[in-house]
Amino acid sequence: MEIEKRLEILKIKLPPCPEPAAVYVPAVLSEQFIFVAGQTPKNGKELLYKGKVGRDLSTEDGYEAAKICILRAISAIKYYVGDLDKIEGIVKLTGYVNCCEDFEKHSLVINGASELLEKIFGEKGKHARVAIGTNSLPGNAAVEIELIGKIKK
Amino acid sequence: MEIEKRLEILKIKLPPCPEPAAVYVPAVLSEQFIFVAGQTPKNGKELLYKGKVGRDLSTEDGYEAAKICILRAISAIKYYVGDLDKIEGIVKLTGYVNCCEDFEKHSLVINGASELLEKIFGEKGKHARVAIGTNSLPGNAAVEIELIGKIKK
Amino acid sequence: MEIEKRLEILKIKLPPCPEPAAVYVPAVLSEQFIFVAGQTPKNGKELLYKGKVGRDLSTEDGYEAAKICILRAISAIKYYVGDLDKIEGIVKLTGYVNCCEDFEKHSLVINGASELLEKIFGEKGKHARVAIGTNSLPGNAAVEIELIGKIKK
Repeated sequence: MEIEKRLEILKIKLPPCPEPAAVYVPAVLSEQFIFVAGQTPKNGKELLYKGKVGRDLSTEDGYEAAKICILRAISAIKYYVGDLDKIEGIVKLTGYVNCCEDFEKHSLVINGASELLEKIFGEKGKHARVAIGTNSLPGNAAVEIELIGKIKK
Repeated sequence: MEIEKRLEILKIKLPPCPEPAAVYVPAVLSEQFIFVAGQTPKNGKELLYKGKVGRDLSTEDGYEAAKICILRAISAIKYYVGDLDKIEGIVKLTGYVNCCEDFEKHSLVINGASELLEKIFGEKGKHARVAIGTNSLPGNAAVEIELIGKIKK
Repeated sequence: MEIEKRLEILKIKLPPCPEPAAVYVPAVLSEQFIFVAGQTPKNGKELLYKGKVGRDLSTEDGYEAAKICILRAISAIKYYVGDLDKIEGIVKLTGYVNCCEDFEKHSLVINGASELLEKIFGEKGKHARVAIGTNSLPGNAAVEIELIGKIKK
């Protein structure tokens, strides 16, 4: 229960496994990889961060939004594999930032997710990353994050 | 020939394997995964749905466009693995919607692909999904969809 | 040293392994796959191609930018696996083009990366591809490219 203890020390409470907003599943476990569906910064079905980062929301707001997305992704993994200690590593994170065409600080926004992954999983939390902007996200979400993880055999 | 029969019942005729629009291949089979290149709503080389969903095209148009993209992706898988019954499952779908910055209904558009996957493949068609907006797609395509599938050993 | 010889013949000098612009790693090797983080057209920390392709930069500029991105991705793979001959194949490339909403020539831009992969790796360089537009990229980079490769056992 190493990771659960780490969550306790960090005073992080995982949300329940996210319910998909449409006809798909929160994650698929295939071979040793788990592919987590794109997560937006929701509490249950309510979007907590809406709008364009850099115009409607600050970069700091985006950072906080990214933290919520990644906790939902971790919750989805837990739902599928049962025990977070079964995570061998975080493989890849893709972060989409809803923003205007002159926004340049995508990295600072997605750091909200990346830094939390490293806090929780340590070395195992180190991942390859893609951060890009987009002119819009479902429901006007500020951030969307998808994840590939590796599970122990 | 379970899946072929299902296609017949659904009165779905797969298009021929899509020809790439540039210097790449329609799909790559690697280990047990098949990675399908991004598909746009084409008939042969002709784009059937062009423009921004929500401005030039309705959400329903986008939904129809997504259906065409996914049939092309399935056709690419068939070309590479021969028999659609060899598909163990659909792993992940990423859907890009060409739209304006105030568009919010990406999920409804990409449902065109997700619902068709489930109609054709049943439980095996359930996938993790990412739906995002983009300000532009190649050739002004309305939708682009990429897919990862899992193939039986 | 087949691939190194090919690089020599092509007069291509790989850049050093890219340093991540934020809290992540350049690539993750997992099972037989290597997932390379999104690469922008940098020389060290300096972005060589900034702005929107089709407005601030020509399609040809975008093509050149894509070449730099892919060399950085190859350099990251080399750093992690040591010997480029260990690459069994390039699996998937995703290319994001920073552009305006009326841009349509994403394929021509990302061909800069795809054609170079095929020049260097031959048949093994043939990959599934996704090319999309985006309204913005980190630091106003013109292009961003991510890669999945397959490594020999």
